[in-house]
Amino acid sequence: MSRFDSYFLMKPSDVVEYAREKLDFFAPDSVLEGKEIGDGNINYIFRVWDTKSGKSVIIKQAGHTARISDAFVLSTDRTRIEAEILQLEHDLAPGLVPLVYKYDDVMSTCCMEDLSDHVIMRAALIQHQKFPRFAEDISTFMVNTLLLTTDVVLDHKKKKAMVKSFINPELCEISEDLVYTEPFNNYNNRNIVFPPNQEWVEKEIYNDKQLLLEVAKLKFEFLTHAQSLIHGDLHTGSIFIKTDSTKVIDPEFAFYGPMGYDIGNVVANMIFAWANADATMSDGTEKDDYIGWVEKTILDVVDLFIKKFNVAWQKNVTEVLAKVPGFQEWYLQTVLSDTAAVTGMELSRRIVGLAQVKDITTIADEKARLRAERICLLSAKRFIMARETYKSGADFLKTLKDVAAAL
Amino acid sequence: MSRFDSYFLMKPSDVVEYAREKLDFFAPDSVLEGKEIGDGNINYIFRVWDTKSGKSVIIKQAGHTARISDAFVLSTDRTRIEAEILQLEHDLAPGLVPLVYKYDDVMSTCCMEDLSDHVIMRAALIQHQKFPRFAEDISTFMVNTLLLTTDVVLDHKKKKAMVKSFINPELCEISEDLVYTEPFNNYNNRNIVFPPNQEWVEKEIYNDKQLLLEVAKLKFEFLTHAQSLIHGDLHTGSIFIKTDSTKVIDPEFAFYGPMGYDIGNVVANMIFAWANADATMSDGTEKDDYIGWVEKTILDVVDLFIKKFNVAWQKNVTEVLAKVPGFQEWYLQTVLSDTAAVTGMELSRRIVGLAQVKDITTIADEKARLRAERICLLSAKRFIMARETYKSGADFLKTLKDVAAAL
Repeated sequence: MSRFDSYFLMKPSDVVEYAREKLDFFAPDSVLEGKEIGDGNINYIFRVWDTKSGKSVIIKQAGHTARISDAFVLSTDRTRIEAEILQLEHDLAPGLVPLVYKYDDVMSTCCMEDLSDHVIMRAALIQHQKFPRFAEDISTFMVNTLLLTTDVVLDHKKKKAMVKSFINPELCEISEDLVYTEPFNNYNNRNIVFPPNQEWVEKEIYNDKQLLLEVAKLKFEFLTHAQSLIHGDLHTGSIFIKTDSTKVIDPEFAFYGPMGYDIGNVVANMIFAWANADATMSDGTEKDDYIGWVEKTILDVVDLFIKKFNVAWQKNVTEVLAKVPGFQEWYLQTVLSDTAAVTGMELSRRIVGLAQVKDITTIADEKARLRAERICLLSAKRFIMARETYKSGADFLKTLKDVAAAL
Repeated sequence: MSRFDSYFLMKPSDVVEYAREKLDFFAPDSVLEGKEIGDGNINYIFRVWDTKSGKSVIIKQAGHTARISDAFVLSTDRTRIEAEILQLEHDLAPGLVPLVYKYDDVMSTCCMEDLSDHVIMRAALIQHQKFPRFAEDISTFMVNTLLLTTDVVLDHKKKKAMVKSFINPELCEISEDLVYTEPFNNYNNRNIVFPPNQEWVEKEIYNDKQLLLEVAKLKFEFLTHAQSLIHGDLHTGSIFIKTDSTKVIDPEFAFYGPMGYDIGNVVANMIFAWANADATMSDGTEKDDYIGWVEKTILDVVDLFIKKFNVAWQKNVTEVLAKVPGFQEWYLQTVLSDTAAVTGMELSRRIVGLAQVKDITTIADEKARLRAERICLLSAKRFIMARETYKSGADFLKTLKDVAAAL
């Protein structure tokens, strides 16, 4: 019998005993300490470490309600989804996600590698730090987790079992509302809009009927296109990074959706980094150097994805009709069109919506922020409206630079 | 305690006792008889009737293996899927499916309305019987079961629960192979081809690389597009009919897929009826009259679907972005394109494939059958290759008549 045989929400004083009893991780003579380090809205994050050896572990526990409010009831099944996805992503893209040591269904915990030596990428980008390995790592992560979970590669019956296992209604609903609806019509009257841009947003976004029609089509693609096991929230706040390591975390939004959703999120978040640097850095070598790295990263994320996608396709395709001449090129182009569209969706919803990004909200100068927001939103419209014309990293970068140059 | 509290495969002698004990259907003083009447490959179909009142019931039981071979192990979950789908279809399209009286998880039985006063539509069409209500009934069935199970109408979380509940890997695999692969490449070397057409089929179908590329795209649409809860096998062999009644049966292939799959199957099977009449009836009033009814049915199936779809859309749409101007027209056009494509897929696989149809195989005259097959296959190619141009019943009929006139 153990007091951890039935569920309760742990305190830091509980978690040391929990780690010692339930994890085969620390030495018997270790001297453990524990602390709650989470700052998200939903889960509790404990760090437990051995003061003798320095070894440490992260224990993530799900409550039956969200951390911020007991009124917000959530299924603890999200912990199972996260643990299973991380293990699957580890198999597909070794080294690019934290290791999972244990998933505990009773206590709703996922115990995993401590990444305290990494930083959250968004915070580092706002400080204009460069990560030369990022495009290489994230393109590998995306090709491996996305292409290898499609019907192109997987046995179709196995793929259907995975679709079933990762149906994720609660989290998908958040994306359906906050990404695919509200930024374009303020439907729930809870959009946040930077006041100096309010009038411009109403004219250029809310009143653009053609844009809204294309968004509607894209929403139905998100709702119905069970293509790949996507991460579902692959922004720079879901990436732990240091110079020689990239780790994708927090796959709780994962489900079978269009793979362009993940790629477009990465591209859009690099555009936020560009817009931040453009707005906040003083002209000179340092700025040129940093902007140059961001631009090269945008190019490389797309072009390395394409290159590795084509290699992985040749190596892994099992579906006989996917080998028909012309199909690979057609399929890749649909992925790039989706990528462009989602780049536009993410750019829109982070400027006009409930979930803003610090890359933009921390721009102190009002005129500079106004310009940065319009760069993002006007690029977004081009990405969405002309999505079928994007074929390379250069096409993505050109939209950003053309829009910025014209403002 | 009852001997029906644990599963066994029934004989006609068991089924009378089963009906009396488990169904609240027959009067206490009824005099029951039972008979096995199934002739399919998979399940056992019992009819039980009261010789006094004439009341009767159908009891469908699933074995743990297919009826034709113990080597073919199948999940009995198919009975649950069938019973649940029939009940759901009854709620959505009252009167157009048999009533389900009971689903028994222990014995894997589905007890339902006896339709012995109806005939299988394919058999009746081969005898050139007309059913003036058919287009009206089947278009109602399709609009109600298809549009009302999409994200246009359903709460998205409820829809996802339904997607999960009706994931159907074993039966989908049959369609993926027999509809979307083998007719175009004889991949499993088990295609049946009418020998006088063998060389022509190799040239016109197997060696048409452009056709194969379009088929590959359509296969991925079938694999990934979770649009509607489709019947999945809506041919004239799955329809019980009489002059004043249409009943859709056998939804065991049901899953969330593209709604054009059902509509295209109905159109293609009416084209088989046309080709049969064209080949086997003597010229004269009777033939003109029958062909006229078939052609009107093809027109009406599509045009009544469009008309009722638009009415149901206005009445039932809940998704806010589906109300955006232009979206309804765009969505309907994607459905019509899918319908044209699937019309072509069904026409192809029933002529060149494992599962033939009697409308064609019973054409005794060799030259007439050869011509009928080419009408179907050349129409099929146009439906697939030019699928985006189909906008009305007249467009579908024109392809058939143009191809036939040129042969």
